[in-house]
Amino acid sequence: MQRSTEPYKGTRDFYPEDTFIRNYIFSVMRKVSESYGYLEYDASILEDSALYKAKSGEEIVNEQTYTFVDRGGREVTLRPEMTPTAARMVAGKRKELAFPLRWYSIPNLFRYERPQRGRLREHWQLNVDLFGVDSVSADEEIISVAFDIMKAFGAHDEHFRIRVNNRRFMKYVLNDVLKLSETRSRQLAKLIDRKDKMEEEKFYEEIKTMLGEETADTFLEILMIDTLDALPRGMIDLPSVQELNMVLNDLRARGIENIVFDPTVIRGFDYYTGIVFEIFDVNPVNSRSLFGGGRYDDLVSLFGVEPVAGVGFGMGDVTIRDYLETYRLLPDYQPTTQLYLCVIGHELHAYASKLASELRREGINVSVDYSNRPVGSQVKTADRQKIPFVICVGEEEYETKRFRLRVMKSGVEKVVERADIGALIRNGGF
Amino acid sequence: MQRSTEPYKGTRDFYPEDTFIRNYIFSVMRKVSESYGYLEYDASILEDSALYKAKSGEEIVNEQTYTFVDRGGREVTLRPEMTPTAARMVAGKRKELAFPLRWYSIPNLFRYERPQRGRLREHWQLNVDLFGVDSVSADEEIISVAFDIMKAFGAHDEHFRIRVNNRRFMKYVLNDVLKLSETRSRQLAKLIDRKDKMEEEKFYEEIKTMLGEETADTFLEILMIDTLDALPRGMIDLPSVQELNMVLNDLRARGIENIVFDPTVIRGFDYYTGIVFEIFDVNPVNSRSLFGGGRYDDLVSLFGVEPVAGVGFGMGDVTIRDYLETYRLLPDYQPTTQLYLCVIGHELHAYASKLASELRREGINVSVDYSNRPVGSQVKTADRQKIPFVICVGEEEYETKRFRLRVMKSGVEKVVERADIGALIRNGGF
Repeated sequence: MQRSTEPYKGTRDFYPEDTFIRNYIFSVMRKVSESYGYLEYDASILEDSALYKAKSGEEIVNEQTYTFVDRGGREVTLRPEMTPTAARMVAGKRKELAFPLRWYSIPNLFRYERPQRGRLREHWQLNVDLFGVDSVSADEEIISVAFDIMKAFGAHDEHFRIRVNNRRFMKYVLNDVLKLSETRSRQLAKLIDRKDKMEEEKFYEEIKTMLGEETADTFLEILMIDTLDALPRGMIDLPSVQELNMVLNDLRARGIENIVFDPTVIRGFDYYTGIVFEIFDVNPVNSRSLFGGGRYDDLVSLFGVEPVAGVGFGMGDVTIRDYLETYRLLPDYQPTTQLYLCVIGHELHAYASKLASELRREGINVSVDYSNRPVGSQVKTADRQKIPFVICVGEEEYETKRFRLRVMKSGVEKVVERADIGALIRNGGF
Repeated sequence: MQRSTEPYKGTRDFYPEDTFIRNYIFSVMRKVSESYGYLEYDASILEDSALYKAKSGEEIVNEQTYTFVDRGGREVTLRPEMTPTAARMVAGKRKELAFPLRWYSIPNLFRYERPQRGRLREHWQLNVDLFGVDSVSADEEIISVAFDIMKAFGAHDEHFRIRVNNRRFMKYVLNDVLKLSETRSRQLAKLIDRKDKMEEEKFYEEIKTMLGEETADTFLEILMIDTLDALPRGMIDLPSVQELNMVLNDLRARGIENIVFDPTVIRGFDYYTGIVFEIFDVNPVNSRSLFGGGRYDDLVSLFGVEPVAGVGFGMGDVTIRDYLETYRLLPDYQPTTQLYLCVIGHELHAYASKLASELRREGINVSVDYSNRPVGSQVKTADRQKIPFVICVGEEEYETKRFRLRVMKSGVEKVVERADIGALIRNGGF
């Protein structure tokens, strides 16, 4: 029987060159999150399915999750998102934890769906959450973290936009202006959330079918507004709009110029309760939402403890990698290995391994070739693995303790003393 | 409905203090592996179950795995070990990859069993593998990597022992000396593998039942030998014993003194074909195998490509953490956050966030308290989160641009200029 070498459908293999890119992306996420004081946490990918059932129990676990029954009869889900896990953990140590709490994690998440560009069955997602602060300063910080990560990746302000909205404002529009029921409001919200994935015509049509011509027109007018000043008089004084105003002004004052009000920003999850935002790729050939987040003020209370204010966002690795590729912002592959020792003859294995181990003590990452192949094949391996420096160890080197250090990129080779190897490599050659 | 805040049975939540320890353990594993030229790879935890079925298909997927059928009718397993995945990936790019290949990964693995001390349903495991070298120098390197990781953790030579054996030697003993069938050999091997977990009496008894008194005595005599010199004359010249001899001598010559020959070392997996080893905790109150590995020369050929020699080991995070705790080798928790800014009054949020953002540009990780609580509560949060430095920002600081920097550990507080904060924190205070 010959087995398949393919990974499971919708998942990825990370060969060293892929892992390099992933580690780069994760390291930027980590660095910025930690600079804001966020502490890393994690949990198992396995969660009791009950965690994803709605409060009242009326909704079943989303059909797009991986859910199965374990041998003990327990229903288990591969986590489709991290926020419920974070809320569970916060609730679990509600009393021991010192609030406010800044937490981040880069978990892998699973969803069961047809794989397509930018949507896989398994992806990783940075989650940044601030618990225990209801001041709008927390919302502003969360948006700043997202902005700073984009900047740390090298993104230009004109290549992305931050679109901000307020769920409380939308609630006002849907309930108080349009007089929609809870159910209709939710349907409409879901429709708006899909707006960027639909033909404009189709979107208008569905809105009209849902609301009737007249109400639809009122609503579409609001949706097309792109600055707070353009809102109808009576709306400008709403606390939810004032809050939006403050967020926009404060962030602009901090140098974030590419931020706009956008009433079409809803964010999929039902749990958002205040400011919501998304980072939008403005590339005309592929404009789309990259990631986003917002305020959710009552997730922790599902666990029977008093409510904890929360605000956060999630940033997926597939979408962001795609964005960085498009704008040529990914670094070139560089292996962690710095030096390749080719060894001429089995008798020199012991000497080469001793030399390698000395160099390791000097902080150099050294690979030794024990294959006993011709030296040309050994150098070729180093070249194909993109290892920047090569030294061949033969009788002469063993006798003289002087070595030919080859810089692979330039092809330049020089005879060097044993004592100089470490420093030369650290300084990038000659 | 009140939901449980417990993690799924047999899995762990990693709060920031746990993540700190895990990251420390991973960073040591990474550092040593990379110093030997190993490159990081990874894959999904989801694998087609066929990957774990034996060559001939006669064995079903181990009952101790998490296996389920996806909605497309495909049988999926949460990987119980990483080596099959690595072999699949190597086979998949057999032609593009430049051998020898040094790969490492720290995947999470799953097994379905009753959780107990040191055995959880989910654990992480460092996997270090060298593909494409059949020279015994590769086996020696792999053992060196394991040894160096133990040393990098601060373990003393006298607190662990490396026990080495050769599967080919055992095969000779079982097939040629004891004349056992393949099936009996395998049963016996499994029994020896469980030796350390059994009462000595019970072990002898089972051996006797299996082999008969006389053969059992011959065999037990061999099992009790602890140096190669003590082996019966005819065995010393066997190539498999010569190989063991070379490994022991070479590694001792490199300064690894705590290495011994031990014929009871078998290693569970069927796929090992040559040198096998384990790192053993010699603590008298809890002596046990910590981790191990060995040579497996024909895993990749299961995928229909020509064989690739392999040698490697796996080191689990639960066992090693337990070991490090026992010998008090774990570092004290230190948050990544360096400075906590307490803010007195909502009007100063904007100023504090600007100050924080300037300090971040100087490389300091800064958390700002936007909770509007009394300053005492804010300082207490910093203290409970073990953040080493605190500055309170009030009207006076805003006016004078001079700040009281408090070193939390000593309680010492000094008034400092804005320009000096970064350097003081980087240097650990005053």
